[in-house]
Amino acid sequence: MRQHKLRMGMVGGGHDSFIGAVHRKAALMDGQIDLVAGALSSNPAKAQASAQSLGLKKERSYDSWQAMVEEEVRLSNWERIDFVSVVTPNHMHFPITKAFLEAGIPVICDKPMTYSLEEAKELVRIVRNSQQVFALTHNYTGYPMVKQARHMVQNGELGSLLKIVVEYPQDWLLAPVEKAGHKQAAWRTDPQRSGISNCIGDIGSHCENLAHYITGLEIESLCADLSSIDNRPLDNDGNILMRWENGVRGILYASQISAGEENNLKIRVYGTEGSLEWHQENPNDLWVRRPNQPVQIYRRGNAYLCEAAQRASRLPPGHPESFIEAFANIYRNATDTIRAKAAGEEPTALETDFPNEIDGARGLAFIESAVESSRSDQKWYPVKRFSL
Amino acid sequence: MRQHKLRMGMVGGGHDSFIGAVHRKAALMDGQIDLVAGALSSNPAKAQASAQSLGLKKERSYDSWQAMVEEEVRLSNWERIDFVSVVTPNHMHFPITKAFLEAGIPVICDKPMTYSLEEAKELVRIVRNSQQVFALTHNYTGYPMVKQARHMVQNGELGSLLKIVVEYPQDWLLAPVEKAGHKQAAWRTDPQRSGISNCIGDIGSHCENLAHYITGLEIESLCADLSSIDNRPLDNDGNILMRWENGVRGILYASQISAGEENNLKIRVYGTEGSLEWHQENPNDLWVRRPNQPVQIYRRGNAYLCEAAQRASRLPPGHPESFIEAFANIYRNATDTIRAKAAGEEPTALETDFPNEIDGARGLAFIESAVESSRSDQKWYPVKRFSL
Amino acid sequence: MRQHKLRMGMVGGGHDSFIGAVHRKAALMDGQIDLVAGALSSNPAKAQASAQSLGLKKERSYDSWQAMVEEEVRLSNWERIDFVSVVTPNHMHFPITKAFLEAGIPVICDKPMTYSLEEAKELVRIVRNSQQVFALTHNYTGYPMVKQARHMVQNGELGSLLKIVVEYPQDWLLAPVEKAGHKQAAWRTDPQRSGISNCIGDIGSHCENLAHYITGLEIESLCADLSSIDNRPLDNDGNILMRWENGVRGILYASQISAGEENNLKIRVYGTEGSLEWHQENPNDLWVRRPNQPVQIYRRGNAYLCEAAQRASRLPPGHPESFIEAFANIYRNATDTIRAKAAGEEPTALETDFPNEIDGARGLAFIESAVESSRSDQKWYPVKRFSL
Amino acid sequence: MRQHKLRMGMVGGGHDSFIGAVHRKAALMDGQIDLVAGALSSNPAKAQASAQSLGLKKERSYDSWQAMVEEEVRLSNWERIDFVSVVTPNHMHFPITKAFLEAGIPVICDKPMTYSLEEAKELVRIVRNSQQVFALTHNYTGYPMVKQARHMVQNGELGSLLKIVVEYPQDWLLAPVEKAGHKQAAWRTDPQRSGISNCIGDIGSHCENLAHYITGLEIESLCADLSSIDNRPLDNDGNILMRWENGVRGILYASQISAGEENNLKIRVYGTEGSLEWHQENPNDLWVRRPNQPVQIYRRGNAYLCEAAQRASRLPPGHPESFIEAFANIYRNATDTIRAKAAGEEPTALETDFPNEIDGARGLAFIESAVESSRSDQKWYPVKRFSL
Repeated sequence: MRQHKLRMGMVGGGHDSFIGAVHRKAALMDGQIDLVAGALSSNPAKAQASAQSLGLKKERSYDSWQAMVEEEVRLSNWERIDFVSVVTPNHMHFPITKAFLEAGIPVICDKPMTYSLEEAKELVRIVRNSQQVFALTHNYTGYPMVKQARHMVQNGELGSLLKIVVEYPQDWLLAPVEKAGHKQAAWRTDPQRSGISNCIGDIGSHCENLAHYITGLEIESLCADLSSIDNRPLDNDGNILMRWENGVRGILYASQISAGEENNLKIRVYGTEGSLEWHQENPNDLWVRRPNQPVQIYRRGNAYLCEAAQRASRLPPGHPESFIEAFANIYRNATDTIRAKAAGEEPTALETDFPNEIDGARGLAFIESAVESSRSDQKWYPVKRFSL
Repeated sequence: MRQHKLRMGMVGGGHDSFIGAVHRKAALMDGQIDLVAGALSSNPAKAQASAQSLGLKKERSYDSWQAMVEEEVRLSNWERIDFVSVVTPNHMHFPITKAFLEAGIPVICDKPMTYSLEEAKELVRIVRNSQQVFALTHNYTGYPMVKQARHMVQNGELGSLLKIVVEYPQDWLLAPVEKAGHKQAAWRTDPQRSGISNCIGDIGSHCENLAHYITGLEIESLCADLSSIDNRPLDNDGNILMRWENGVRGILYASQISAGEENNLKIRVYGTEGSLEWHQENPNDLWVRRPNQPVQIYRRGNAYLCEAAQRASRLPPGHPESFIEAFANIYRNATDTIRAKAAGEEPTALETDFPNEIDGARGLAFIESAVESSRSDQKWYPVKRFSL
Repeated sequence: MRQHKLRMGMVGGGHDSFIGAVHRKAALMDGQIDLVAGALSSNPAKAQASAQSLGLKKERSYDSWQAMVEEEVRLSNWERIDFVSVVTPNHMHFPITKAFLEAGIPVICDKPMTYSLEEAKELVRIVRNSQQVFALTHNYTGYPMVKQARHMVQNGELGSLLKIVVEYPQDWLLAPVEKAGHKQAAWRTDPQRSGISNCIGDIGSHCENLAHYITGLEIESLCADLSSIDNRPLDNDGNILMRWENGVRGILYASQISAGEENNLKIRVYGTEGSLEWHQENPNDLWVRRPNQPVQIYRRGNAYLCEAAQRASRLPPGHPESFIEAFANIYRNATDTIRAKAAGEEPTALETDFPNEIDGARGLAFIESAVESSRSDQKWYPVKRFSL
Repeated sequence: MRQHKLRMGMVGGGHDSFIGAVHRKAALMDGQIDLVAGALSSNPAKAQASAQSLGLKKERSYDSWQAMVEEEVRLSNWERIDFVSVVTPNHMHFPITKAFLEAGIPVICDKPMTYSLEEAKELVRIVRNSQQVFALTHNYTGYPMVKQARHMVQNGELGSLLKIVVEYPQDWLLAPVEKAGHKQAAWRTDPQRSGISNCIGDIGSHCENLAHYITGLEIESLCADLSSIDNRPLDNDGNILMRWENGVRGILYASQISAGEENNLKIRVYGTEGSLEWHQENPNDLWVRRPNQPVQIYRRGNAYLCEAAQRASRLPPGHPESFIEAFANIYRNATDTIRAKAAGEEPTALETDFPNEIDGARGLAFIESAVESSRSDQKWYPVKRFSL
């Protein structure tokens, strides 16, 4: 029998962390997870203060992730965390994830998965050897209408695919906020902590992941033009021509300097029989268009949606669900899979519907290929191999 | 010093309850509340099964709300629930709320507050005598952009108000689902459990509450045309001409039989200097229009919003928040008020920003007045008094 | 054989006239009508200047409409105007229309048809006796997607109708512009020239006409609340509960004081099987909703639309058509009917699809009933009879 | 003194021509132009039938454009056409335009201006030598809100420009309609009549022209990926990375095979201080976004718009204007310029606000550069020179 409630630990995510708070809300909202342990900051005083405000017991708030791994594995089965969420800056994802997996503890990790493709490939091996569940929070795949889009494409409702246009403009780095004490901006624009890309690494990789999730297509080659304003060391805008497998063409672009844009991720997928369009800022609608037919808007929560989309909804139609709920769907599926494995059961396809280490490696391959393409005079840059 | 985590109990809300699950997600998502006790169903077997799946300890799952009151008050201060959520059908709100308040336990109650205006007036007295916190989950007032709307109106940005148009069409009762085993439909269409109105009682009262929350206006008189298809005993559609104080006119309508409408609550408020418009199904936007100026869309999460709207947001702009988060804002403010009182502190105006027993009584006065107006030949029906 | 080009005359519509210019553009754009004669202003100097700038021959520019009737009938068949457009203030519609019809000249008249219901009934008789074509420019019925809406309702695609909500807010009379030299505002707010109503007479009557055009329903009774700011003699806001035949309920409202609203005519029609929604400000879309199905947007110009909608389009899908084109559709159908009659042919149902004298009388009956209802304490005011 | 009415001739545009009918409606709607002569088809019988239905006198309907030039120049000043509109397939634009200009007759020509860049450069010389007015109907620049966009950019309201994204998806060539008797499809997909590009030539060039019109920027280099389905000889989809002058980057794409897209031209321009967005299918709105401020929607017809936008409107706010009206604005400005020159006056900057031969040559340079880039392995292809 499967366990109802799971015990969650967290590394990173102290006060002021945007994404740590999102992970916690996503994990807690369904009442099936308790947060019981954490190494919430590399600054011990901040870690303790954060832990207290979150109601952690003092002995489960650790001063370092190393101490956390060491102590948690010593606890009994009915006390030890059932999984850990890793929400640190990018460069720390790899060592922390490695340590927990090797200690036999499943990991839910923020994206991008690692600092480099090399690390990513190594992590794929580690996940496989560990036989533990690993989930990557490419959270946009958790939206019900994204699942419906995937269902329709994979069910052939658009015919043969011809084109993908995916874009993600923001404006939060238009001004040099990283010099004005904005903590997240500081590490994102710092190559030591972000890796070789900022904009493509952070949000361009969401575009790649979303397009792959919906269509199942791999990129063959790309032609990138990344740039930066104000002589920043890393890109904050990137425009890319894409060639996916099967002759599918397209455009992928991401920007952190597009004035007035908030978080405007959009995807359009065109096939021989129809097309679909989804906007993250109005996530409950999926627009479907077919030649010579009225436009259709599929809406979250309705009984006509596919099973995966229905499972990903908590509320009836017209009661909108959004970002945190989509994030919570990643947690729900990942933890259902953890529960299944712990109970010696095979998780279902609906349960294993969450991004994993292969998606993470694909993302790093895309990021590194885009950066190298941008530096290259070669028009079509073949995407790097990411599988073992 | 204020207590971090609060212990929550729940009456009603077992498996299959829509609103019970919403209350729990809203309560839990911020990680500051634990659900520890409940009388989750009037059916004891169902109550126990529900409690188990929610991780309640067996001894805190009660077979009746009467048992729950009795047992909880016997527990020590550090075990007893800090508040209870009442999510039963309407006719049970009064006796349960009364019992908990009189036992010294704060209550968060679903709406409408009571079965009748008479009960509502009595409950106002009970709340006052108890000196306990009482919150009513008119959840739409929890949306950040509704708070911004209220701020702008009360700050005079629309000038003197002239007109209010508020509407709430749905279609879930277009077919006679109450005869086909739809549990919520069954009690909502049943006068014994719903009270004298279904449509106006359920969603019309949200319209009244939302309009009052934003504008602060009381209704003077109204002219209602309620109706029902299929000879149902209670209304499932209502159109009402409104006369608010200060000569403000308007329209309020609600419907459960408007084909294809999901949960399409909208409000428009017009003043001498400008107007605003808000749609629940796209809740992150607030449209503001002024003569001879470009239309403006105020968007959730931005630093230009009022303090109450900012406090009600969890995510940056463009990361949409929706129904559950708005609901959670009612819980956040109500529980902050409970914490403040428990610590002997005065809660702030931001903390006491949640619907209370007066709003509940105002709602019942509106519901009863609308039903009576509809039955009357009198054109303008004065709204019933609801204060003590 | 039908005549290709028709010769048009115009009464009213000199410089500064908004609606006169609209009529001319609508008439001329299809290249099948020439403007050849006019009494363009009651001020002879202005009439001549206007005529010159429009390229009228000097001898066909008349100083009065009386002179125009008198002279035109003396011209030969191949010179005389084939029809006249009447675009004066309301109070002049009746005598001018009467004179031209009795002289054997078809009339296209702006709305409302007459100053009073009494005049309207008289005009119905005059039209019938004259056996001439009479068209009334309730131009919103000329929109292709309104024709599609009518088709779908009358084809039973919404099932049995249950409810109509139609609204028309503007803000152009929020400030007292009639006192600041705004010519149209001056006559619209003047009972001597407008009749007993301003807001309901001008735009409320468009709502009534649009609802009737789409649904075919007659009003049985209504309950109106008209009002005026700044002690104006005529209404500038009106909210009305409606009871149409067959038990269909609804709301109709119009306003000229709704800050920031431009010309926001919208209609929603609900039936047992589905609903439709159309917005004049985005006129190329028709939203259709059915329970448990994706929302549909029917779009102008597509081959899946009904014949009347297709005939009313000039451009392929995605090349938007708007107000003037819709107006031109009234002209196209009315003049096709004039051509047919002149050729001794029976016009088709597609050709006679334009508002006529009965629609005009229905409009006046609505206007007078709404004004009287608003003054009455009677809740449900029976609509006045308008047919002979 | 300026002449009121102008006499217009037309080459091409017989029955079944889409664009010929649009030109005529655009020319006629304002009542300042009469169509008096034409060589409406290369098929004489069709030319005569078309002429008759348009009310041309028999002697002014010519069997060939050569005959038309020859005969018209012999007519007296008060009979001869004041200008000619050329609406044939692309390959005939050059010889016809050349002939009329050299005969002293101004030309309004459909786009693209010529079959090749070489012809375009030659035409620039011919226009200059002729000293006649030449206008090119890049009609999207006629929209009022496009003029407002241009005003705001050129007024510095967006700060320094950073990025342009312009796109134009359609689906009308998704199926091989050129093989099924679709006349326009047949010539557009035929290199003999279209030139070296179909999709980029037809609608990609609108994107380039629109971006240039609004921003004033020239392209420095581009990187194109054009493609075709079904082995068609010419492109029907094109994705292009753009580098404009001043370091402005961007994306331009056009498609005729994007299922369900009608005529979805959109442009977004981003600067350091703000951005703007305009959609051709909802042309009355211009979205303006600035960091940390509410979104603004500028709306056609309002007094707060720039002079050029106001001059380009015919109706009050909320009375939508669309495609034909925008097209008519090209005609209005071009013919006002023709009138001014004929009267020996200097046309104003507002009057000469229409696309001309330089815009035409720029378009051909873009088209040829895009096609050559697509065939090249060079990543950044410098755009061809187009000025003399």
